[in-house]
Amino acid sequence: MAPPWRTSAWLNTPAPIDLEAQRGHVVVACAFQMLCPGCVAHAIPQMKTVHELFGPQGVVVVGLHTVFEHHEAMTVTALRAFMHEYGIRFPVGVDRPAEDSGPIPQTMAAYHMQGTPTLLLIDRAGRLRRQIFGHIPDLHLGAEIMGLVAGG
Amino acid sequence: MAPPWRTSAWLNTPAPIDLEAQRGHVVVACAFQMLCPGCVAHAIPQMKTVHELFGPQGVVVVGLHTVFEHHEAMTVTALRAFMHEYGIRFPVGVDRPAEDSGPIPQTMAAYHMQGTPTLLLIDRAGRLRRQIFGHIPDLHLGAEIMGLVAGG
Amino acid sequence: MAPPWRTSAWLNTPAPIDLEAQRGHVVVACAFQMLCPGCVAHAIPQMKTVHELFGPQGVVVVGLHTVFEHHEAMTVTALRAFMHEYGIRFPVGVDRPAEDSGPIPQTMAAYHMQGTPTLLLIDRAGRLRRQIFGHIPDLHLGAEIMGLVAGG
Amino acid sequence: MAPPWRTSAWLNTPAPIDLEAQRGHVVVACAFQMLCPGCVAHAIPQMKTVHELFGPQGVVVVGLHTVFEHHEAMTVTALRAFMHEYGIRFPVGVDRPAEDSGPIPQTMAAYHMQGTPTLLLIDRAGRLRRQIFGHIPDLHLGAEIMGLVAGG
Repeated sequence: MAPPWRTSAWLNTPAPIDLEAQRGHVVVACAFQMLCPGCVAHAIPQMKTVHELFGPQGVVVVGLHTVFEHHEAMTVTALRAFMHEYGIRFPVGVDRPAEDSGPIPQTMAAYHMQGTPTLLLIDRAGRLRRQIFGHIPDLHLGAEIMGLVAGG
Repeated sequence: MAPPWRTSAWLNTPAPIDLEAQRGHVVVACAFQMLCPGCVAHAIPQMKTVHELFGPQGVVVVGLHTVFEHHEAMTVTALRAFMHEYGIRFPVGVDRPAEDSGPIPQTMAAYHMQGTPTLLLIDRAGRLRRQIFGHIPDLHLGAEIMGLVAGG
Repeated sequence: MAPPWRTSAWLNTPAPIDLEAQRGHVVVACAFQMLCPGCVAHAIPQMKTVHELFGPQGVVVVGLHTVFEHHEAMTVTALRAFMHEYGIRFPVGVDRPAEDSGPIPQTMAAYHMQGTPTLLLIDRAGRLRRQIFGHIPDLHLGAEIMGLVAGG
Repeated sequence: MAPPWRTSAWLNTPAPIDLEAQRGHVVVACAFQMLCPGCVAHAIPQMKTVHELFGPQGVVVVGLHTVFEHHEAMTVTALRAFMHEYGIRFPVGVDRPAEDSGPIPQTMAAYHMQGTPTLLLIDRAGRLRRQIFGHIPDLHLGAEIMGLVAGG
């Protein structure tokens, strides 16, 4: 089962998004950092397209701001400006800082992520079906998501 | 139902590929011309990736060389050289010239294609589910093909 | 004559870069903001290549962080993290905030810039020869800079 | 000195272009093959931009169709169709086949080219200043050509 998301704030949504409450929906989540070049160049534009294509089909598309470096630069205030400038319309949760004040935030740790971007594909039953660190080509991603949507 | 393909030659396959004999398989076909810039820049690289990703899953991936202009330049000999240089490994059928010696070859006419590239998505029952003139983004195409593979 | 730069900090250089002291050198300066998508996608990669190609030929290549929006997000601390992540090695000056606490910083105002990115080409005599808002293709930029280097 | 061009036909020009007659002009020539993927994807689009930018400044921009493989496919008829489809407006000379019927045409042999694309930069005095096999970035090419234009 996909571990719950542990967040400290949400943007682009009136209420926090609880992963457990999404049962019955396919969920696509992208863990990113606003100052990660690969996220900005590839993962975020890809997620915007995923949101436009699959959002109307009932897929839940979410960003997770998993800050594990440059914490002083990647604040919620900075994230809000970033999302405005890059036209991000899907909800983004801020990963909750570690309790022991280490650099790795809690959701990132719970999923044992190696870095950003990391993509999570979660099926209707709440199972983590795929976790991809780095780049996945659009053709492959479209097929993977549709495989879950079609009930695979 | 998808009309049969009317061809005069095949490359990259020991025997002609009869569309009717593909029942039970999803079929992705790309009608192109070797001197069509949009085909060369976008459709053919996309089809190569489709072939690599979906071929091992049993999807039949095929090119159709639907020459409707510059017939004297786009001969079978030229097509063979083109396919070698561009590393095309999927089978390609040569659309059969019109019987009345008009410019539009027979398969192109049967499908009422408007130009090249044109993509055909055919389901396991032989029904033409989608016909797309021009460009379709990779994310959308991956989803469309997977929708058919998953039995949609 | 190119107006002097009015800055509050410099990164990637042991001492502030005074424009007047560059006489005898061709100067290429790019005014950017770290959260400006066009700067991140196009202008900054272009400036990195300009720096690699023309720096060894004696051209002075400089960035100017002209923050006119989201001031709370684009701090010097954030800029330093950004430059680290994007591998920027040329000196970057922080444009000095307006004295009347308006949003437009002083160098940006002195050059009447319309936004970011804005490229400045300054000849050996300190004259502003070109000011370009937005994108200039690489071929054109290489020719423009070389025109100044060759003494045009 | 740049060897003379040995050609058997010219397209996009009312008369053959004699290299010796271009003294006083900077000359940029691109040796290509119409079925060479790197030429089609990179060199030819780059030459079209070179032609648009530097043509009005008196630079002579020329293509040379140096066919050394698939001779039966890359005929003058096929080249004419290719140039029409790809919107090539600069003159293109067809490199003259070898007298001993070997695969390497005469101009290609005279310049000891290793393959296609190969770029030739010739100064106003007819000297071959640069010969580049493969890709040269736009910024570098713009600078190289402008260096010759400015009299370097």
